[in-house]
Amino acid sequence: MEPNRKETDLARLFEPQSVAHVGASAKPAAGRFNFTEYLLNMGFRGKIFPVNPKYEEVSELTCYPSLAAIPGPVDLAILAVPAPRCVEVLRETPAGKVRFVVIHTSGFGEMEKGDLEEEILALSRAKGFRVIGPNCMGIYSQPGRIGFWQDHWEIIDRPGTVGFASQSGGHAINAIKGGMDSGVRFNKVVSLGNQLDISINEIVEFMGKDEAVQVMGLYVEGIRDGRRFLELAKEITPRKPIVVWKGGTTENGKQAVLSHTGAMAGNDEVFAAAMRQAGVLVVDNMHLMLRMLRLLQPPFSLPGGRLAIFSPGGGNTVNVSDLFSAQPALSLPRLRPETMKKLKDLLPEENVDVKNPVDPGAVGFLVMDKLIKAVGEEDQIDAMVVLLTADYLSNIKKEEDRLLALETISSTISRLTGLIGKPVYILMRKERHNHEDIDRYYRMMVNKFIEKDIPWVDGSFKNAAEVFGQLAEYSQHVARWKHRAA
Amino acid sequence: MEPNRKETDLARLFEPQSVAHVGASAKPAAGRFNFTEYLLNMGFRGKIFPVNPKYEEVSELTCYPSLAAIPGPVDLAILAVPAPRCVEVLRETPAGKVRFVVIHTSGFGEMEKGDLEEEILALSRAKGFRVIGPNCMGIYSQPGRIGFWQDHWEIIDRPGTVGFASQSGGHAINAIKGGMDSGVRFNKVVSLGNQLDISINEIVEFMGKDEAVQVMGLYVEGIRDGRRFLELAKEITPRKPIVVWKGGTTENGKQAVLSHTGAMAGNDEVFAAAMRQAGVLVVDNMHLMLRMLRLLQPPFSLPGGRLAIFSPGGGNTVNVSDLFSAQPALSLPRLRPETMKKLKDLLPEENVDVKNPVDPGAVGFLVMDKLIKAVGEEDQIDAMVVLLTADYLSNIKKEEDRLLALETISSTISRLTGLIGKPVYILMRKERHNHEDIDRYYRMMVNKFIEKDIPWVDGSFKNAAEVFGQLAEYSQHVARWKHRAA
Repeated sequence: MEPNRKETDLARLFEPQSVAHVGASAKPAAGRFNFTEYLLNMGFRGKIFPVNPKYEEVSELTCYPSLAAIPGPVDLAILAVPAPRCVEVLRETPAGKVRFVVIHTSGFGEMEKGDLEEEILALSRAKGFRVIGPNCMGIYSQPGRIGFWQDHWEIIDRPGTVGFASQSGGHAINAIKGGMDSGVRFNKVVSLGNQLDISINEIVEFMGKDEAVQVMGLYVEGIRDGRRFLELAKEITPRKPIVVWKGGTTENGKQAVLSHTGAMAGNDEVFAAAMRQAGVLVVDNMHLMLRMLRLLQPPFSLPGGRLAIFSPGGGNTVNVSDLFSAQPALSLPRLRPETMKKLKDLLPEENVDVKNPVDPGAVGFLVMDKLIKAVGEEDQIDAMVVLLTADYLSNIKKEEDRLLALETISSTISRLTGLIGKPVYILMRKERHNHEDIDRYYRMMVNKFIEKDIPWVDGSFKNAAEVFGQLAEYSQHVARWKHRAA
Repeated sequence: MEPNRKETDLARLFEPQSVAHVGASAKPAAGRFNFTEYLLNMGFRGKIFPVNPKYEEVSELTCYPSLAAIPGPVDLAILAVPAPRCVEVLRETPAGKVRFVVIHTSGFGEMEKGDLEEEILALSRAKGFRVIGPNCMGIYSQPGRIGFWQDHWEIIDRPGTVGFASQSGGHAINAIKGGMDSGVRFNKVVSLGNQLDISINEIVEFMGKDEAVQVMGLYVEGIRDGRRFLELAKEITPRKPIVVWKGGTTENGKQAVLSHTGAMAGNDEVFAAAMRQAGVLVVDNMHLMLRMLRLLQPPFSLPGGRLAIFSPGGGNTVNVSDLFSAQPALSLPRLRPETMKKLKDLLPEENVDVKNPVDPGAVGFLVMDKLIKAVGEEDQIDAMVVLLTADYLSNIKKEEDRLLALETISSTISRLTGLIGKPVYILMRKERHNHEDIDRYYRMMVNKFIEKDIPWVDGSFKNAAEVFGQLAEYSQHVARWKHRAA
């Protein structure tokens, strides 16, 4: 490999000045990715060049017959033409004309057509362009205003600090989809596909240095140079969390990986253990990935493992105890007698519990305020978790009173977090599922927490316990590193 | 214990002819359970007797000063007065007047006021009534038209076959809440509280014999006679599934149990293993409990463990492989070459996978119909799982076309299930969370599947894998039993 390839500045990939879309069409078709339209909708600030010898104009832009015909340099060329045609296009492209190529097309390595891939790699070296893909969606970049799906314009004005790289294009689409209304704010997303040229390691190295990215999520199926990945992770994780979701952890999964991205999935138990040792947070599904990214992004601070939990209902208290205690990095310290006395004085005599978890019964949020403050002042508590259900708002008759209740809750939490200096998390639930009103109250609450930067977790108690368990483990990792560095 | 107590027919508890509500009030108060109103709203067919010396009338019904003052026998008396007053009420009640007493009041055993409990037990033996509670919600019964929460009238006209017993009142409320719009159809629910007299074992024995109950869910914190429970379970599970959620599985959880229902939680790992051996399905959260109950209730049939899965998207295929293969009772058999050939002929060349899981790409449901049929005809496949996302409906512009698409999907699934004679499950997802339209499409789809008796599973792939893993294990248990019996 030539030495100059190592020096590629990927910043330009995410903030190109000019983008060509090879395979642009004047006739929109269902199921065809319309990258030209996406760029227009997102208010892309650079030049857009549709390329297709069949048309003179696409989306009211001049359409060019080839990349060579475009006046001036092209920072990024997106190739969405059949696999053999991709090779022809790149053969015809003058050296130095194009900086980055995203090959959207599939049907290369994953379909055993390795010869085409080999030629593209040779062309990229000879002509000086770098390749993302093939078999990928390419780039979403909030600062660069580019994306790869019809809904990306919806979030392009929302700055974020999350970087995400995925070997699955579907997962790249779904990560953004899943995060867009639930407070995961993406800065850069890259769908890597078969990693013919630019690999996950190069992206991790870049995002590790990129100040706009403060937390990284990765969906990987095979890492070509696992040793290098672990070196990078060890270097990055003390400053910046990395969450990895690894596909292909079973024999069946490995077979599916081979069909999907042509990668060889390695021995995973060994690799997962090594990742954990390198401070990487390991997840195994999209829901957990999104929860982790949401809670790891600024301005949220990292919680330790000594939690106080407020969960109304005796059964809830029992189950929260069980599931949180089962996490090695978590503990629910018994409160001091003085604190329990304070809580007792604030609560009714029956159907409450002043140990930890605290069962406050059905008290209002004005009392909750005092409870959280009393518990939060204990030195042995790192963070607090407050269970809230969307069903709660259904007990309030008028919409204006609901909004008022929500305002009270959120400003109480914000104020307490500042006052105590410890994170206060909302554990969001709905007891009634598939109900129009409750769905709406749930969205109202979540939107308010996102607006006010209040950290919240969804899912079952088990899901939540897993999230806090991993956050606490990572917090220990960071602390150990700081201790060593000092 | 007197011999006659063993012969109590609990059928009358769930279908009483007359109910007294001690502590009924003419002045509604927030947070107070209004059992009289619940009975009226639910169209209870028997007599309702509010009891309170302070009022002559409650909810337009004659209010009585005491249980003794009520003309005729009382099948069920619900006591919602302070703990010491409960004892007085029962002291004053003539022997033989009342058949069952639900003591809603808390503050007995769980607050170390055991003396009151002892006296109540003595009174119940002397006067011949049986006690549910204290510290409980009592009874929901669809055939009996009685309930314990303000929303129970909403489902009282929907017959069901699920029996649920819970040591947590909150969980009893939330199980019904969680099931009511998601197709879990309850027949009888009992909140047991401290189990002073009637215990979980007596309920299990009754529901085991009750033909109206075809599947049982139990939330337990402590079982007084574990040996008897296992005997009952062994006897019942070959005909009727029992799903148990056990609270208090960790030291912290056991402490919380003591505060909650005063029960002693035992050694759980041993007990859980014994439960599994007795064919009990063991879960650890409400979401999983509801999923299991939904899929175990008639008319759904029990699937074996050899699944074929249809999941569009390469990443999905990989993750489904991983998570389903990790379940000991599940396998994803490789399809026969002839079947794969058939699928290949039906699908485009790229971005699909004809192994198992099948990645059908973005084909419509008319093609899906043929794919499912071809795969379903393989002998080595017990059941099929089809991934559907609510987001799919957002690609359809007009509401009428959406309804049509949904009709096509659901009638295809219904027809195929009949044709192939194997269950076809929908794995329901939404990729975009907290979005008004997607939430609505999700409800539309789920409601349609409920209406058409199509089995569906929600949650992550991991959640689904767990559900199918347990269903397959239980299916093996039933098969082993049949084999032995033959």
